[in-house]
Amino acid sequence: MRIAVLSGGIGGARFVSGLRDAVAGHPDAELSVIANTADDIWLFGLRVCPDLDTVMYTLGGGIDEERGWGRSDETWHAREELAAYGVEPSWFGLGDRDLATHLVRTQMLGAGFPLSDVTAALCERWGLGVRLLPMTDDRVETHVVIDDATQADGRRAVHFQEYWVRLKAPPAHAVIPVGAKDAKPAPGVAEAIADADLIVVAPSNPVVSIGTILAVPGMTDAMRTSSAVVVGVSPIIYGAPVRGMADRLLPTIGVEVTAQGVAEHYGARSDGGLLDGWLVDESDAAAAEPLNGLGITTRAVPLYMSTPHLSRRLAADVLDLADGLRRG
Amino acid sequence: MRIAVLSGGIGGARFVSGLRDAVAGHPDAELSVIANTADDIWLFGLRVCPDLDTVMYTLGGGIDEERGWGRSDETWHAREELAAYGVEPSWFGLGDRDLATHLVRTQMLGAGFPLSDVTAALCERWGLGVRLLPMTDDRVETHVVIDDATQADGRRAVHFQEYWVRLKAPPAHAVIPVGAKDAKPAPGVAEAIADADLIVVAPSNPVVSIGTILAVPGMTDAMRTSSAVVVGVSPIIYGAPVRGMADRLLPTIGVEVTAQGVAEHYGARSDGGLLDGWLVDESDAAAAEPLNGLGITTRAVPLYMSTPHLSRRLAADVLDLADGLRRG
Repeated sequence: MRIAVLSGGIGGARFVSGLRDAVAGHPDAELSVIANTADDIWLFGLRVCPDLDTVMYTLGGGIDEERGWGRSDETWHAREELAAYGVEPSWFGLGDRDLATHLVRTQMLGAGFPLSDVTAALCERWGLGVRLLPMTDDRVETHVVIDDATQADGRRAVHFQEYWVRLKAPPAHAVIPVGAKDAKPAPGVAEAIADADLIVVAPSNPVVSIGTILAVPGMTDAMRTSSAVVVGVSPIIYGAPVRGMADRLLPTIGVEVTAQGVAEHYGARSDGGLLDGWLVDESDAAAAEPLNGLGITTRAVPLYMSTPHLSRRLAADVLDLADGLRRG
Repeated sequence: MRIAVLSGGIGGARFVSGLRDAVAGHPDAELSVIANTADDIWLFGLRVCPDLDTVMYTLGGGIDEERGWGRSDETWHAREELAAYGVEPSWFGLGDRDLATHLVRTQMLGAGFPLSDVTAALCERWGLGVRLLPMTDDRVETHVVIDDATQADGRRAVHFQEYWVRLKAPPAHAVIPVGAKDAKPAPGVAEAIADADLIVVAPSNPVVSIGTILAVPGMTDAMRTSSAVVVGVSPIIYGAPVRGMADRLLPTIGVEVTAQGVAEHYGARSDGGLLDGWLVDESDAAAAEPLNGLGITTRAVPLYMSTPHLSRRLAADVLDLADGLRRG
């Protein structure tokens, strides 16, 4: 059984962690995680890949569980010193342990290795038990258009990290995955999609995590033509995100902040969209019911992944729904 | 009174610190430190300048006093993680706070700033009270030829840091300042020498610290033609280094490991060499006496700089000797 997961950061990482546990009994299970790289940013001359690292640290047991990102047992001395030198940006926190990952990555990229090779080399150390693939080796960076009274047209585009970390995700006019239309899926990505028995759209931000993965040319076609069953997990519960800020930016692209709104945005496979199945939280059972009529088989289960046990149970629910869809 | 000091790392930094204290009462005193950069090395994609940083941290109050190099209140988490990734070299210790300096430097160099500008920008934060100049903006790297039975000719050249830090300075066949002959003094260096009233050769390694500064074309000529009095401080006391490993590599270039051996190596100014005056330790008074006959005015004083007070006293002795030489 080959499973490919489209994932952003925290929510996706926790889901994949549960999925790895759930299939631990199946020796022939192969997990590939296709991670968003449009959050990536150059900071202090280093290439930082937040979603790849969150997945790597989470699956490798190196994550800070409470924050959900960065390394456990972390210190912040380099950051303190960078601030003392007055070097910007001061709003992005690179921990001392975390820095080592970015140093190795930056040095390998500088030596000419593509991000996919660099990611594989970094993951070697952590022994993930899954294959972690960047969505692309090409540079794609999400920019967000926000209000700025100091500009002639009253607007300004900022890098996603500045929008998210520094500005705390205010209302936005547009989301632009810069470079996406010229990007190619990283080696292994198209194959992971084509050869999968099951593709899972993780409960990650539909705009800046899943949306940017799907913005890489060829990705949606690969998903539509794959013989895999495609199951998505709602990142929204009763109008609020399962984890983090997965609700942000949905209004910007005209999608309702509900479990059914996101499902309709992804669309039914039978109707040219992506989804065969969709998991919503129990609290959204009634509201999401009409999705079945649109060709998206919807099931209501507990979606909160507040413990590894719950992540695993959610993964088991995904496998179960996929099983049903495959048979029926 | 304008003073230029030729300096390596620890010994030079402590001496300059004492000198800064000693001239604190003279409002018109201007101190320029010309620091060796031939120890510099690229590590993990970062440009590390050990001697510049030792001087900067020492004068800026950020040095780890006990080690004599690196930052106070330091942690080593990034280093731990780099080792966990299996990235070489594992023998060079970059602390977490120290890393910030290298990150800022590397980013500025990458943006096109010469090392002298980068050094000035870094020093801005520390408020040194002296002008710290790299000997050159060009890349010069000391390589040392050592025994290696695995090589056809039984020898191998290694970067100075590998020789020093990893191999702990074994006997060597040759010292090669790679790139020196094509290097130019950094902006301000030739002027600091030409305009000085006093030039001090700090008690630093005569081969790999002072020797490499002097290997930059134009440096020895500038010193010979300067109207300054030139006073050196012996890095050797009774056949042993004042601090660190200043005795190493002297035999490789055929210099006796004594205070008088080093003075003869620098030579008397009246005889085409560099020195007007020379300070040796009291224990070397008798042995160094013949230097006076060679045209190097030699005085014996306590040379150990184990406390800031002693460093300041040594600096006062240098100023005193220079005064005497100037008067005639």
